[in-house]
Amino acid sequence: MATLLPTRDPELRKDPVTNRWVIFSPARAKRPSDFKSKSPENPNLNSSSCPFCIGNEHECAPEIFRVPPEPNWKLRVIENLYPALSRNLEYPIGQNDDSVSELGRWDRVVPGFGFHDVVIETPVHSVQLSDLDPREIGDVLIAYKRRIEQIKGFDSIKYVQVFKNHGASAGASLSHSHSQMLSLPIVPPSVSARLDSMKEYFNQTGKCSLCEVQSKDLLINETTSFISIVPFAASFPFEIWIIPRDHSSRFDELDNKSAVDLGGLLKLILRKMSLQLNNPPFNFMIHTSPLQVTDSELPYSHWFLQIVPQLTGVGGFELGSGCYINPIFPDDAAKVLREVNVPTSG
Amino acid sequence: MATLLPTRDPELRKDPVTNRWVIFSPARAKRPSDFKSKSPENPNLNSSSCPFCIGNEHECAPEIFRVPPEPNWKLRVIENLYPALSRNLEYPIGQNDDSVSELGRWDRVVPGFGFHDVVIETPVHSVQLSDLDPREIGDVLIAYKRRIEQIKGFDSIKYVQVFKNHGASAGASLSHSHSQMLSLPIVPPSVSARLDSMKEYFNQTGKCSLCEVQSKDLLINETTSFISIVPFAASFPFEIWIIPRDHSSRFDELDNKSAVDLGGLLKLILRKMSLQLNNPPFNFMIHTSPLQVTDSELPYSHWFLQIVPQLTGVGGFELGSGCYINPIFPDDAAKVLREVNVPTSG
Repeated sequence: MATLLPTRDPELRKDPVTNRWVIFSPARAKRPSDFKSKSPENPNLNSSSCPFCIGNEHECAPEIFRVPPEPNWKLRVIENLYPALSRNLEYPIGQNDDSVSELGRWDRVVPGFGFHDVVIETPVHSVQLSDLDPREIGDVLIAYKRRIEQIKGFDSIKYVQVFKNHGASAGASLSHSHSQMLSLPIVPPSVSARLDSMKEYFNQTGKCSLCEVQSKDLLINETTSFISIVPFAASFPFEIWIIPRDHSSRFDELDNKSAVDLGGLLKLILRKMSLQLNNPPFNFMIHTSPLQVTDSELPYSHWFLQIVPQLTGVGGFELGSGCYINPIFPDDAAKVLREVNVPTSG
Repeated sequence: MATLLPTRDPELRKDPVTNRWVIFSPARAKRPSDFKSKSPENPNLNSSSCPFCIGNEHECAPEIFRVPPEPNWKLRVIENLYPALSRNLEYPIGQNDDSVSELGRWDRVVPGFGFHDVVIETPVHSVQLSDLDPREIGDVLIAYKRRIEQIKGFDSIKYVQVFKNHGASAGASLSHSHSQMLSLPIVPPSVSARLDSMKEYFNQTGKCSLCEVQSKDLLINETTSFISIVPFAASFPFEIWIIPRDHSSRFDELDNKSAVDLGGLLKLILRKMSLQLNNPPFNFMIHTSPLQVTDSELPYSHWFLQIVPQLTGVGGFELGSGCYINPIFPDDAAKVLREVNVPTSG
């Protein structure tokens, strides 16, 4: 029944935000349904052995905070039991000097000091993030913000990467709904590249590239404070960005009211993605400014949340070139997602 | 029986060639055997329906050349039946002007003109690349070179990415041993980043970063003309680079004698990887110079072959930050691979 997607010649596009080339190559005529996930996530209902379930707190690494601060918590922020970075290393004095860390020096080695935290989004094993109501999702977003504000006190931490892995093949080792925050002693490569690219756009146009985003054909849904789009040069099929309408360079500027608004849009988008793409494994990432942001960076740095359903693998071409092949044009993907019917209940 | 790998504090390293940060994080004590692939490739022996098998040439897209040029070929270079780029698009005049293409202009769109070729490495379905003898693997390498030399005639092609996907989860859609060549109308992002980084090293030291590579603790094996190492800031566990000893900026400078030498080393390394890591899916990529290389680029650009076994997935952290987490330090991985015993027969 579903109509074929339009046949179009392949095209390369370079994104003004990420500065990456993407090959759009709808090599064969496809239906929107051809993109359904072949490895949908089946919720794991076995909660007896899950350390993230309420009642099993003693199996976890130490807690940082919980909301509300009572035995009947709704979310918890804890240390990762197997952290990628160590909070117990001494960070050498002088190493966090900006004039050193911004140089592209070779053979650079930095001790693995940092924080690797887990945000348990719900006390209940079978509940997914998109099952929560907008206010509860807003509470998760505000927990990220609160933790970032704590980490700002550490001079040697340069960037906090907030991310969520949903599904084993997207990197989640536990099925209980959670996200992670990795606080790094460096500004990571994709962040530097993004800021450089947005700065260049700003220098040439006097405008912020995300304030200027052309959302017409790329729009999925919008709310009072946010828009959701498929980006102009999406690296992955059905990749989605949620962007604050008003210029904001830092995720941790999010206020409580906007957090609920964003919670509602994130819930809608995750449900649309699940319905259209057969509950695919997915990742989301918050792209924000480094912690020690200067005033001159603020006009061109604009935070956003990126959602990537895991529908295609990565092969030697992508590994070698850094260039992705996307089989669906962004405006076609946006139209499909715009038109998904979400049942109002549930 | 196997001893534990040494316990070490996490560390961040930036590679002088790729300019990428990697987190080395041996979070838990591990044995070398803990890294064995959990999804080894089982050879698919059903050759009756395989278009790459000898006798089924009519099921393939057009042939470009075969070696030797007889019915009993040993390898064939053909067009990809589902190319990511189109050889039938007209490339707009002026678009291939360097002054345009090197600028990081936003919203850049380039028609998807290019070549997407397949190198069928053997006529026999059950034979893998590492089953061939050094001279036969050399023939495959020389076929890459010959095809690159043909493509050099097209002004609008800027870079040829040679790559191999082995195993379904590494991106191979057909199990018959083959590699691919994607000829692009742009210089892809990872190539630009690599050349920029190597140029900076050269400007600061007067030397080529790959001529200077410290191979002592990182060496796996070496031959007359090549060394194989685990790179100083390997993004992936057991990632391997094969590097020509003498400075050479372009893969297509490879001569017949060196091709056999490289064939022997590639065979040895692939067999070691298969034995140690349980026949993992893998990718290899040739990193070389853009086609229109200038004389000033030659002193710092040094080609190499990168091999990446697929042992770990990519999650939201890597997607968001561009930073990888590697659970094994390069010198530990090199020691493991150096000591693999390869049976002399077979």
